[in-house]
Amino acid sequence: MVKVVILGQGYVASIFASGLEKIKKGELGYYGVPLANELPIKVEDVEIVGSYDVDSNKIGKSLYEVVKLYDDNAPESLKGIVVRKGIHLGSLRNLPLKAEGLEDKMTLREAIDHLVEEWKELKPDVFINVCTTEAFVPFESREELERALDENRKERFTATQVYVYAAAKYAKEVGGAAFVNAIPTLIANDPVFAELAKESRLAVFGDDGATGATPLTADVLAHLAQRNRYVKDVAQFNIGGNNDFLALTDKERNKSKEFTKSSIVMDLLGYDAPHYIKPTGFLEPLGDRKFIAMHIEYVSFNGAIDELIINGRINDSPALAGLLVDLARLGKIAIEKGQFGPIYEVNAFYMKNPGPKDMPNIPRIIAYEKMRMWAGLEPRWL
Amino acid sequence: MVKVVILGQGYVASIFASGLEKIKKGELGYYGVPLANELPIKVEDVEIVGSYDVDSNKIGKSLYEVVKLYDDNAPESLKGIVVRKGIHLGSLRNLPLKAEGLEDKMTLREAIDHLVEEWKELKPDVFINVCTTEAFVPFESREELERALDENRKERFTATQVYVYAAAKYAKEVGGAAFVNAIPTLIANDPVFAELAKESRLAVFGDDGATGATPLTADVLAHLAQRNRYVKDVAQFNIGGNNDFLALTDKERNKSKEFTKSSIVMDLLGYDAPHYIKPTGFLEPLGDRKFIAMHIEYVSFNGAIDELIINGRINDSPALAGLLVDLARLGKIAIEKGQFGPIYEVNAFYMKNPGPKDMPNIPRIIAYEKMRMWAGLEPRWL
Amino acid sequence: MVKVVILGQGYVASIFASGLEKIKKGELGYYGVPLANELPIKVEDVEIVGSYDVDSNKIGKSLYEVVKLYDDNAPESLKGIVVRKGIHLGSLRNLPLKAEGLEDKMTLREAIDHLVEEWKELKPDVFINVCTTEAFVPFESREELERALDENRKERFTATQVYVYAAAKYAKEVGGAAFVNAIPTLIANDPVFAELAKESRLAVFGDDGATGATPLTADVLAHLAQRNRYVKDVAQFNIGGNNDFLALTDKERNKSKEFTKSSIVMDLLGYDAPHYIKPTGFLEPLGDRKFIAMHIEYVSFNGAIDELIINGRINDSPALAGLLVDLARLGKIAIEKGQFGPIYEVNAFYMKNPGPKDMPNIPRIIAYEKMRMWAGLEPRWL
Amino acid sequence: MVKVVILGQGYVASIFASGLEKIKKGELGYYGVPLANELPIKVEDVEIVGSYDVDSNKIGKSLYEVVKLYDDNAPESLKGIVVRKGIHLGSLRNLPLKAEGLEDKMTLREAIDHLVEEWKELKPDVFINVCTTEAFVPFESREELERALDENRKERFTATQVYVYAAAKYAKEVGGAAFVNAIPTLIANDPVFAELAKESRLAVFGDDGATGATPLTADVLAHLAQRNRYVKDVAQFNIGGNNDFLALTDKERNKSKEFTKSSIVMDLLGYDAPHYIKPTGFLEPLGDRKFIAMHIEYVSFNGAIDELIINGRINDSPALAGLLVDLARLGKIAIEKGQFGPIYEVNAFYMKNPGPKDMPNIPRIIAYEKMRMWAGLEPRWL
Repeated sequence: MVKVVILGQGYVASIFASGLEKIKKGELGYYGVPLANELPIKVEDVEIVGSYDVDSNKIGKSLYEVVKLYDDNAPESLKGIVVRKGIHLGSLRNLPLKAEGLEDKMTLREAIDHLVEEWKELKPDVFINVCTTEAFVPFESREELERALDENRKERFTATQVYVYAAAKYAKEVGGAAFVNAIPTLIANDPVFAELAKESRLAVFGDDGATGATPLTADVLAHLAQRNRYVKDVAQFNIGGNNDFLALTDKERNKSKEFTKSSIVMDLLGYDAPHYIKPTGFLEPLGDRKFIAMHIEYVSFNGAIDELIINGRINDSPALAGLLVDLARLGKIAIEKGQFGPIYEVNAFYMKNPGPKDMPNIPRIIAYEKMRMWAGLEPRWL
Repeated sequence: MVKVVILGQGYVASIFASGLEKIKKGELGYYGVPLANELPIKVEDVEIVGSYDVDSNKIGKSLYEVVKLYDDNAPESLKGIVVRKGIHLGSLRNLPLKAEGLEDKMTLREAIDHLVEEWKELKPDVFINVCTTEAFVPFESREELERALDENRKERFTATQVYVYAAAKYAKEVGGAAFVNAIPTLIANDPVFAELAKESRLAVFGDDGATGATPLTADVLAHLAQRNRYVKDVAQFNIGGNNDFLALTDKERNKSKEFTKSSIVMDLLGYDAPHYIKPTGFLEPLGDRKFIAMHIEYVSFNGAIDELIINGRINDSPALAGLLVDLARLGKIAIEKGQFGPIYEVNAFYMKNPGPKDMPNIPRIIAYEKMRMWAGLEPRWL
Repeated sequence: MVKVVILGQGYVASIFASGLEKIKKGELGYYGVPLANELPIKVEDVEIVGSYDVDSNKIGKSLYEVVKLYDDNAPESLKGIVVRKGIHLGSLRNLPLKAEGLEDKMTLREAIDHLVEEWKELKPDVFINVCTTEAFVPFESREELERALDENRKERFTATQVYVYAAAKYAKEVGGAAFVNAIPTLIANDPVFAELAKESRLAVFGDDGATGATPLTADVLAHLAQRNRYVKDVAQFNIGGNNDFLALTDKERNKSKEFTKSSIVMDLLGYDAPHYIKPTGFLEPLGDRKFIAMHIEYVSFNGAIDELIINGRINDSPALAGLLVDLARLGKIAIEKGQFGPIYEVNAFYMKNPGPKDMPNIPRIIAYEKMRMWAGLEPRWL
Repeated sequence: MVKVVILGQGYVASIFASGLEKIKKGELGYYGVPLANELPIKVEDVEIVGSYDVDSNKIGKSLYEVVKLYDDNAPESLKGIVVRKGIHLGSLRNLPLKAEGLEDKMTLREAIDHLVEEWKELKPDVFINVCTTEAFVPFESREELERALDENRKERFTATQVYVYAAAKYAKEVGGAAFVNAIPTLIANDPVFAELAKESRLAVFGDDGATGATPLTADVLAHLAQRNRYVKDVAQFNIGGNNDFLALTDKERNKSKEFTKSSIVMDLLGYDAPHYIKPTGFLEPLGDRKFIAMHIEYVSFNGAIDELIINGRINDSPALAGLLVDLARLGKIAIEKGQFGPIYEVNAFYMKNPGPKDMPNIPRIIAYEKMRMWAGLEPRWL
């Protein structure tokens, strides 16, 4: 049994909850769950015990009611869980939503204690953070972090930073937990939080779930690198219609990318081929099914120039939700193994920006095999 | 030093010869050569010592003159080699070319002996077979093969089958050689030839050089398999304007595909997703730069349907020619290692249909690492 | 009011029937119907009065039951019409269906009279022929046609050829009717049938409904021609999973293309740019939503080479069904105008191979305006 | 004979000059010139008599030397023309170039008089403005324009605005001229300049030459509109590596788009389908050959959803340069016809934003026929 608390009950978390219940009821196969039912912990063993959000239209509603906003076939078994009030700290700023958070009526320290108390009742093993993309600034030291909490400097924090602090405190008290950071805010890649997690017995998977075009780009670039083709340039566009793309129209929020480690291009090719890789726009009718377009130009033998053009229509939220079904179970396995802090073997496959800091992107096809071995499974092709 | 004999001086072999000389002269980098200069045997150590063809317009000409047909910048250093008369056996049938072969004026046994004598003078280590795609029928037993030779049944053989027989005879006499079969005719996958090669000390790399869309498809399918996405269907078209595409308009010749082992789809996905994967047409102005189009539809988590569309403009001949620069050197390494017959560790990366028979396609990204280790190199990411 | 008889109650005819009823019930807009409700005859005025098929699983069933095979939301208002037995003459050969036809138990002449009698009761204005693609041979003269009927040479005819003969007979007796030939069999382009139609007061729209990639290709080629860009080559693939694509895997049936007039490439560019344009394959899971891929390479100013790649996922049957809603109404208008035989002004927009014989393809965007003017509407942009 | 003065000797103008000379020498066909040699004024009759730029590396050089920067095969016949100093007014701001202009050492009024004097010697019929994209603000009235000149308010003007003022003055003095505005700055669409041009006997073609993806999008949207398909959304990306894309990374400059009239989407569909259409990024190695990607989703009959994906590799400068060969000749024709101010019949085909103000975009395929008729040619298909 893996008990899960969701932080941010939006599109991804709702598809996660919905798909999970449908699998339990035998209505759905394991498609989109990389490890399917190969792990000793079964998909059916994953249980959502709590859910937090800051949209005032969701707080206090049943998980069933919220999931129904995103999936017409929401399973009724979700009726038993109520969405609780979490931390916002401006995370819905500029989005067409009314936000409220625990910190509206208490200090950050008080809010953290409040969460830890609730969690000690809910007894989660794994926290899954799927808040909206945030504009954040890393902390330079543990001292700066503690001081900012002491001074209740709300403008200094994002929701994710507060959640992971609370999760670490909880882990320390109960003897172990795992935190899955599926959004770009640096946690696994932030030495301050990585160290805090390790000493608190909190396993960390992060940062930024590896969905969409990026992992495919990684494997295509590895494919070219292995043939020693010289990549002249890479352009990658994507456009979608969900809240995540809407949030990216907010320039502040896009700054979160500034702290991202050097790109997959350098890691996989070994040189910094000129590239333009970024989320490009918001187009409401596309909904959750984004459109991606990629163009790669490279030099082959005898100076020949080749071109690849890749287009896709990809459901954004289910891609990430399927990974979360693995990550919840791998979180429990990490706790059982007594392995805490950022776990690269897992992150290299599941994360766009695999922590800890300075660890490289490697071809996903190879990362997959290493991840299997970490989890105690046979490699598939190695 | 690796001494190479070319069998079939067409587009691929000409780009191979041209690029190789340009590298030696420092005019070209190692782009398109997967192992670049990492092997102990350097690219500059590869030397073409002989070349065979059956086009009456090429026989007797210098390699420089022939290469110039395909590459305006043919290096003058190719002037010293004369293209010799080889075996045709109908391999140019239906192509707009006048063919002549050794077998026109002697029996097959005599032609084989003639070749072996020439080779004992040229002293090649490695034979590179890049004949035009042939319509062939495998032999059921060694006996059937020998009997057909005894009876001089020319209609029973293809050029490749005669060449590999001669190469085996040569290898036995000189103590070791390697044969690179870059075309679809089954050699590495044919138990009769595989056994003949092994006992004759002939290393065999084959069959069908892994260029074009297929290796990319392999890696994309592996990418999907690793995320447990259920592939609903795969369509892959390609069209080009070189002689290889022209040859494929000949229905007989397409029969060579009938003997190909079960597709990459089954090997990589583990189930036989409906697929349509075949060369589609000939369009002369495309020349050597073919157009490929691929469509893949798959099921993601919670029943979501995603689509990928991949298009490419890919130079056909340079892609294969770059691989040959490695295969020549790996052939010499196999001889030095004393490893003969089909070598799967090499074939799994470089060949569309990696022999020996019944060995599976695996993701190229993984095959690459295994091949490196076979060749005594460090893996890159493993 | 326009009374319609359907010949061939397959995918297209079923979507036509279903969509029409949904529009009448106000459940659907006019999307996909080019003239929407601009004509004096309204979409709501179109009434299906009869339907013919030769699949033994359909004959005798209600239209509702048959339509339900193709559209889950089949309207119940279709329950009143029963699918009647038509003519097959091998039109389902090699398809996984059991066929039966009137001609199984009577001569062709008798079958024709049988149909005419039924139609004189049903009183249709317009016949819509959407049989499966047929392998056919045109008749050289009216005499040959009549003699083949006299001799009951069933192997000489296709279903369409018999249907149009019967429709002409009916038109002559009742004073006027229209025949929409939405499949490739030459009718509007066949001088024998064109003359028969004209003298019998039968308006003919044909041949081969302009859906899928071809009309888009026409407009893209016109776009290039107008900028005097020199088209080097055009490749166009398409693959689908409906019966029409399955039928095309039958080589005989593909012969119907041999009689098609010279391609849109010549008509629109003014020179015969090398091209490969044909249906490419069958892939069952694609269903009615085919995948198309097109590649066009052209020379721009100062010798620059540009490339366009167009991909599409297009629902095959709705595209044609929407056109039929116009063609039914335009058929009635032709009768009212007293214009019989092939009508180029209509065909140039709606048909791939617009009859009468030797009339050219023109850009669809211009054909549209001319068609509007023929129908008494204002042009939209002219 | 048409005498042309070029304003802005960058990529487009250099390809224009180069291609024109090659055509005169018989080295190049008329590809990319829409009207080829159908007009009474022949391509060979176009003569460049002057060229202006503000890049200090170009001023004083021969046209041959400048063209050679963009085209290795620059014709030597361009050696006779020297590039003169023009007006910059910040038009190269933020580009990696050192700019100098007439206004550095004189007032705007003086610079205008200086230009008019030079032109009265050069005697051009047609001015072709191909400056870099500018950040501009339209003038509210003729008075505001004159006052700003009187006050020498350099920060209020762009180079194009000054050039067109000077061209109008010149036209008035010599009795007629034409101004081709191939960049986005509003001239033909600006009532102040349109009126000034008309009363000064200056024909105006503008604004923003219709190259790249936009005219193709226009024809594709018209194609869909004519079938009454309901467009759900349109996304169009493009990325290139020439100075024009580099300039667009300057946010100020992008503001020029704010004054663009409502999009082709509204004009062609009749409703404002959600769309994202804008230049997307700069990627240096792409050079002048940009990559475009377009995604269109629409509703067909019976509620079916179709998708089109269009990708292209398009040479930016030759596409526009080829249009200029027509526009120079059409400018002379306008003068001969005595038609001044913005000429919609020409602009509707050649311009992205066809002036005068408030005139709509129409399908290019139809605009082409109307333009031919204006020029005294037979329509091609009408």
